[in-house]
Amino acid sequence: MTPDITPAPEGSVEPFDAVDVIRTKRDGGVVPEDALRWMIDAYTREYVADSQMAAFAMAVLLNGMTRDEIRVMTDAMIASGERMSFAGLGKRTVDKHSTGGVGDKITLPLAPLVASFGVAVPQLSGRGLGHTGGTLDKLESIPGWRAALSNDEMFAQLEGVGAVICAAGSGLAPADKRLYALRDVTGTVEAIPLIASSIMSKKIAEGTDALVLDVKFGSGAFMRDVDKARELARTMVALGTDSGVATTALLTDMNSPLGLAIGNANEVRESVEVLAGGGPADVVELTVALAREMLALAGQPDADVEKALQDGRAMDAWREMIRAQDGDPDAPLPTPRETHTVTASAGGVVERLDALPFGVAAWRLGAGRARAQDPVVHAAGIDLHVRPGDEVAPGQPLFTLSAEDDKRFARALDALEDAYAIGADAPASTPLVLERITA
Amino acid sequence: MTPDITPAPEGSVEPFDAVDVIRTKRDGGVVPEDALRWMIDAYTREYVADSQMAAFAMAVLLNGMTRDEIRVMTDAMIASGERMSFAGLGKRTVDKHSTGGVGDKITLPLAPLVASFGVAVPQLSGRGLGHTGGTLDKLESIPGWRAALSNDEMFAQLEGVGAVICAAGSGLAPADKRLYALRDVTGTVEAIPLIASSIMSKKIAEGTDALVLDVKFGSGAFMRDVDKARELARTMVALGTDSGVATTALLTDMNSPLGLAIGNANEVRESVEVLAGGGPADVVELTVALAREMLALAGQPDADVEKALQDGRAMDAWREMIRAQDGDPDAPLPTPRETHTVTASAGGVVERLDALPFGVAAWRLGAGRARAQDPVVHAAGIDLHVRPGDEVAPGQPLFTLSAEDDKRFARALDALEDAYAIGADAPASTPLVLERITA
Repeated sequence: MTPDITPAPEGSVEPFDAVDVIRTKRDGGVVPEDALRWMIDAYTREYVADSQMAAFAMAVLLNGMTRDEIRVMTDAMIASGERMSFAGLGKRTVDKHSTGGVGDKITLPLAPLVASFGVAVPQLSGRGLGHTGGTLDKLESIPGWRAALSNDEMFAQLEGVGAVICAAGSGLAPADKRLYALRDVTGTVEAIPLIASSIMSKKIAEGTDALVLDVKFGSGAFMRDVDKARELARTMVALGTDSGVATTALLTDMNSPLGLAIGNANEVRESVEVLAGGGPADVVELTVALAREMLALAGQPDADVEKALQDGRAMDAWREMIRAQDGDPDAPLPTPRETHTVTASAGGVVERLDALPFGVAAWRLGAGRARAQDPVVHAAGIDLHVRPGDEVAPGQPLFTLSAEDDKRFARALDALEDAYAIGADAPASTPLVLERITA
Repeated sequence: MTPDITPAPEGSVEPFDAVDVIRTKRDGGVVPEDALRWMIDAYTREYVADSQMAAFAMAVLLNGMTRDEIRVMTDAMIASGERMSFAGLGKRTVDKHSTGGVGDKITLPLAPLVASFGVAVPQLSGRGLGHTGGTLDKLESIPGWRAALSNDEMFAQLEGVGAVICAAGSGLAPADKRLYALRDVTGTVEAIPLIASSIMSKKIAEGTDALVLDVKFGSGAFMRDVDKARELARTMVALGTDSGVATTALLTDMNSPLGLAIGNANEVRESVEVLAGGGPADVVELTVALAREMLALAGQPDADVEKALQDGRAMDAWREMIRAQDGDPDAPLPTPRETHTVTASAGGVVERLDALPFGVAAWRLGAGRARAQDPVVHAAGIDLHVRPGDEVAPGQPLFTLSAEDDKRFARALDALEDAYAIGADAPASTPLVLERITA
């Protein structure tokens, strides 16, 4: 059922009417390409009101969009701003994007690891909001390191070091910026067409040759449900492919935190352990899996990524990357003023460590921000001492909370009340990387 | 599936979070009573933003509301403003509300007709917007007549004349006023829970003892589909009954215009014909049917309403009612400056006269307004010379357009291009009053 999209009233200079566009999607129809492009453009120009876009977003969330509508929506958001190009570089460019999780510091070891094979890795990143951390917040734990680079600085660093992790300029997909803030307050974040077009418009506008997506499912992820996460991954892989960006996705488990560190400075510390050839097994596994995908898209399907972690090449690239952005890779990282360790009240097996409450607790400790303008506390967070499946004795430390002020501990502990279980049954083993999704 | 409605963040003085309320409805859940009352109250206070209410309204349109949610929503809108009471009157009060149609002037003959039986008829009315006309706009064709009355004037007129048609004060259900304007621009007008709570909040706040609803279906109605109209009627009858207002609904056909006049002054003229014992059969039939329902609810089930139209009692009440509001019932009504008559290009039977395009054409001629602040042209509109089922000869006049400026005719004729058909087959006879719906 596709109602007519009628032209705007006589006397208007606008070719469409927002109410007609909303009604079409509300009634389960397909919005014609020119009307959808107009809707995004008119919203960017503030001709279409927030209330109209909010009603449209809710209709999209409940009635969906066709693959073609998502492509047009993404393209319209790209067209709202500038496009970058890495065509002048002498190397292939490969980017990675994660849909976000608790303890997800993978970008930190991954970018220098992949760059150590002569590939350019432009990681235009954001800051955290809510219970998932932000890559830039983590790196700012390193004394001197700066996130803001000019385009010239970024290009020079990609040409030299190969890896750059920096703040995305505000010129990429400004329509998405406005729409994302609106979705956040109108209960329309979870719409797959809107998530997909939001992520992919920025990645396509950035101009990367190839892209690997880490699409997470489970308690600590945007998409708790694996089927929804798979649908999101397939949608984004199709969008990238249709736009000439070679795109692959891994569907990965985010029911437990990744690694042992949740926060900022402690996540940098854990990343450096991985770059030194150690670190928690799950962080290493995911770093290696994503590096293999990125290098395969860059034409090096047989690259020995584990060797680059063991022989110091990845660590060298990390140190160069940090130094290029004025950071001191040898400076001590901030340490917490106050800590509080939780111990096992009884012995048994760790049956469960639930990602979401640990993310919320770290956020309440000061590792994350409630509003975009708030600062984060770099030394705040949680260090786990056990993983699901570990045996513990009564009184054995389970995890340590860190904060600047011990008043923070009570609300963090509230969040953690039902976050873990110690009992008789070892949890079933589940794969970290569930599926690989390609075009 | 009812997600938790969590309290608002720490530090907030608000007990709920709008995003949680929106998510609950989005996911098909039932919004708890205290959260729904808060949502309406916070919207009235402008704490909840238009964009948030728009997303909520779209979720309600697509996922519906339980009878209990609709009751709470209606009650919250009543609580946003003042409540009136007619308890001090020495008579029963019965109101009528129509969901709106093309050529629907029934309130004009109906109010004095019912009042002539000693019943008080408080018709707090509105102005037209879009293709359906407004009762106040029609009456303002009468020289001197004024729509704005003080509460004291209204009570005095109900006590004396018995019938009053005047503008609803802004103090009744102000939440509805804000929500209605929002729905109009966000494609969320057609939600049954929102239509029902909008209409009934005003009628219950008004304080009438009884209410008869004329719920229309067909091309010229809000609800084209008869099943949707029936659902709306049942919802409103239940709401009225639950609030102690004796409520009955008639489900009536709005596929063709009501009567022969569509506009303002010409509709007054047609109403006076009915009050004089004449007028088009369909207008008389619906006036009589609604009057019987109103009088039955007022304790006079056997009142001979046809007699009151024939013997001049209804006309006397009309003249008193108009005079009480400073109108001159004997003054000539405005006549059009320009007219344009459309004739039959071939002979045959009038198979169809489609209400919606005739409504749109009259609106384009100046009888209605595109924006709330626009004036209407009282002499603009359409006079039909034939009805569906009539035989016509080639060249016979079908209808006449009236406007202040002949430049208006082209766009009105555009709207009418496919609005009627003359052919070989007489249309099937369909009842004007399809069903009667009671508690």
